Amino acid sequence: MNDSIAIYPGSFDPLTLGHDDIVRRGLRLVERVIIGVAETATQSKSGLFSIEERVALIREVYADEPRVEATSFQGLTVDFARSRGARLMIRGLRAVSDFEYEFQMALMNRSLWPEVEVLFMAPDVRHTFLSSSLVREVARLGGDVTEFVSAIVKERMDERFAESASR
Amino acid sequence: MNDSIAIYPGSFDPLTLGHDDIVRRGLRLVERVIIGVAETATQSKSGLFSIEERVALIREVYADEPRVEATSFQGLTVDFARSRGARLMIRGLRAVSDFEYEFQMALMNRSLWPEVEVLFMAPDVRHTFLSSSLVREVARLGGDVTEFVSAIVKERMDERFAESASR
Amino acid sequence: MNDSIAIYPGSFDPLTLGHDDIVRRGLRLVERVIIGVAETATQSKSGLFSIEERVALIREVYADEPRVEATSFQGLTVDFARSRGARLMIRGLRAVSDFEYEFQMALMNRSLWPEVEVLFMAPDVRHTFLSSSLVREVARLGGDVTEFVSAIVKERMDERFAESASR
Amino acid sequence: MNDSIAIYPGSFDPLTLGHDDIVRRGLRLVERVIIGVAETATQSKSGLFSIEERVALIREVYADEPRVEATSFQGLTVDFARSRGARLMIRGLRAVSDFEYEFQMALMNRSLWPEVEVLFMAPDVRHTFLSSSLVREVARLGGDVTEFVSAIVKERMDERFAESASR
Amino acid sequence: MNDSIAIYPGSFDPLTLGHDDIVRRGLRLVERVIIGVAETATQSKSGLFSIEERVALIREVYADEPRVEATSFQGLTVDFARSRGARLMIRGLRAVSDFEYEFQMALMNRSLWPEVEVLFMAPDVRHTFLSSSLVREVARLGGDVTEFVSAIVKERMDERFAESASR
Amino acid sequence: MNDSIAIYPGSFDPLTLGHDDIVRRGLRLVERVIIGVAETATQSKSGLFSIEERVALIREVYADEPRVEATSFQGLTVDFARSRGARLMIRGLRAVSDFEYEFQMALMNRSLWPEVEVLFMAPDVRHTFLSSSLVREVARLGGDVTEFVSAIVKERMDERFAESASR
Repeated sequence: MNDSIAIYPGSFDPLTLGHDDIVRRGLRLVERVIIGVAETATQSKSGLFSIEERVALIREVYADEPRVEATSFQGLTVDFARSRGARLMIRGLRAVSDFEYEFQMALMNRSLWPEVEVLFMAPDVRHTFLSSSLVREVARLGGDVTEFVSAIVKERMDERFAESASR
Repeated sequence: MNDSIAIYPGSFDPLTLGHDDIVRRGLRLVERVIIGVAETATQSKSGLFSIEERVALIREVYADEPRVEATSFQGLTVDFARSRGARLMIRGLRAVSDFEYEFQMALMNRSLWPEVEVLFMAPDVRHTFLSSSLVREVARLGGDVTEFVSAIVKERMDERFAESASR
Repeated sequence: MNDSIAIYPGSFDPLTLGHDDIVRRGLRLVERVIIGVAETATQSKSGLFSIEERVALIREVYADEPRVEATSFQGLTVDFARSRGARLMIRGLRAVSDFEYEFQMALMNRSLWPEVEVLFMAPDVRHTFLSSSLVREVARLGGDVTEFVSAIVKERMDERFAESASR
Repeated sequence: MNDSIAIYPGSFDPLTLGHDDIVRRGLRLVERVIIGVAETATQSKSGLFSIEERVALIREVYADEPRVEATSFQGLTVDFARSRGARLMIRGLRAVSDFEYEFQMALMNRSLWPEVEVLFMAPDVRHTFLSSSLVREVARLGGDVTEFVSAIVKERMDERFAESASR
Repeated sequence: MNDSIAIYPGSFDPLTLGHDDIVRRGLRLVERVIIGVAETATQSKSGLFSIEERVALIREVYADEPRVEATSFQGLTVDFARSRGARLMIRGLRAVSDFEYEFQMALMNRSLWPEVEVLFMAPDVRHTFLSSSLVREVARLGGDVTEFVSAIVKERMDERFAESASR
Repeated sequence: MNDSIAIYPGSFDPLTLGHDDIVRRGLRLVERVIIGVAETATQSKSGLFSIEERVALIREVYADEPRVEATSFQGLTVDFARSRGARLMIRGLRAVSDFEYEFQMALMNRSLWPEVEVLFMAPDVRHTFLSSSLVREVARLGGDVTEFVSAIVKERMDERFAESASR
């Protein structure tokens, strides 16, 4: 196991500035942050972007940051971590409901693989109310998401909604 | 700043097995964990052990672990961290109320020193209900704290309560 | 903007006595409360009443109260508010999970339109456990909802379930 | 009404060791615990086991415990309780979000039938992060659920996933 | 151990209608409810009534209810329960912060005496915001506490504040 | 009662930028915001500023805002509101623990005076972690509070700590 690698698992549909904030904080802790986009049956159906599109978009966002890698994974998060030689997992916390869910997942993951360690970090206070689902909803209803996602993500979201509208 | 050093600030009156669990998890992240016992006016009065006794007790507990250091500090936690060349701070999370307080402190600390990063970790599930104040109370009422603190801490607590009783 | 108008957005499927309590409290704050039934893809499918039926039902409930208006809206809640010249939004709070979601929405809305102000109000304590989804579920399972909704709403719910049964 | 009978309602898809812990605690309170598997439209569709399978599985688990009974029910939980002559209902609590939902349900049930009394119990601390949905998810992703469910439940889960895989 | 006895521990300074509601619910579960007023150093100093006065007041309130007993106790709650042959403990739950504290205490008590079982109950919804400290504060500031405590408790509170005023 | 007046009660030791944010939001709702500094036995002892100093400081802060008034009050908050002809009360909400306490107080106040209405508002997201006690603590430990309080408040705090140091 290599403790200078951490995985950052999630659905990232899409990556928000809150996620980006956690990635950049993670880079101060470890040499390499591997963003793992979880492939789950439900997400791929109702999502805005496909798993492949999300991975491609994250790669675009971090094109100039060789220490960030993006990939998709199937199966248990702990198995993904193990397969990448990572024992560390990073997660952002925003609200009490996040905390409860994350705590439950951390204890479950530890139960499945006692070596894993989840590091919870607080995002910048300005991002404490952000979530991918809220950003998707705002964009879907025609709102401006410039403050919530990076320029590249906004561009891809605009394209996606333009496609939907033209259909 | 040295990212292989983390401070673990608190009042530690006394160090419980929950704290110990976080220290040991911290040692898997960084080379050196500096346990900082905060000197505050209120704590020194109502506490079970004095600040000096707490530091001495923590040093006894980690006598065989050269990577753990214990010291007291006055003033802001971020100033203590900075003075030790540490940018990382570790904190355990147990419950929702912990989370809110810790989140508030993490954001305040970041406001005071943007470079600081707080890493929250979940203790072993068996320690999720432990707190120093609860352990003090149980011991004060004659309960057995063997399951909650290390053998050395228990011994010192027994001595302390024996002293109180004989007065 | 007219500060004697407030919008009260929601799905209202159906309007409960808890909602009614908030409407009546709102009428003590402003001259006019505009109940906005949000048109969302998911709600219209799985709901008990259609958007149009909900609006009609709310109009029936407030037939004698000219200061309450009901209408449906599409798009962002802040755009709806703006279109009606309203800068105030009222929302009821019941439980912790309500609070977190409402807080997140309020901050998101403020991010989208800094002029908007959300006023949170506590309903009567007797309604603190009420929710439209719980009321729908109880009615669907044959329970008596007399204590949870107004007489008109109950009548329409009875009709709706009678229709379902006779199909 | 017979106060030596309690119902324990839920979806139990599947019964976890956390549920089992609550059942065994319930047996110390009352003579007979009736596990009621709620038949709801949504659960029967997306579940791992059908309602009938869940009841059969619970009966297998408690084959040697004549004081535990398992059955399915339709309609309101309070009506089920009443039909079985039970005024007591037991529920496990794990987290804050559980608490809020359970509290809301308890107050709603009391509103529907003032005689009902819900007794909330804390499971063993080792089970505080367990949930049926998490156990289903772990098993679906190939994780080992030995620590989370009884041997019989694990066996039936393995069979179910083997069937899915061979289809 | 006698499972038709439950203890109801607390500080009861004073007994509110919320406490009374839990006592009456407890009487539907067990033959005898023993209200245990905990003697702690801090409470006896800052309290409205002394420990002895609280016990006497509770006895007055339940003068006609032979199945309720009131007594004070020192030391651990589990030791008090054990000394009375009771394995059951009842506690009311109102809010999230109650829940966390109560959950922590229940797990700590179980750690100290695995046989103990804490039964949490929800008070009547009208009492969900009541607390002894709030009632004391309201009375101290000249507010009317008729809706929050029984007539006997109100009378003793009035006497106490009249004494303070005349001093 | 005059619905263009709202009281904003609290201890304000000292007034933070979070409080100021709520005051300014309140001024968009009503003609006049009356900041009421509550006189309580405990606060006057352990506080940084006396009740009179707090009132004077708030008056300095709002010297150019004739629509804001500051005064101290004794007794129940609802009695203070009533004495000023105000039926509206404003309160800021930051976190879940705030919410629970505020909700409890709002219901208690309504119980004491059914006409009162509490309007909860969310402060700017940048102030969600601020509290007077945290600001006092930071200043006491030598931290810079420029970002947390207005210039006038900072000046008075600096003076106060300089006095303490020179004693």
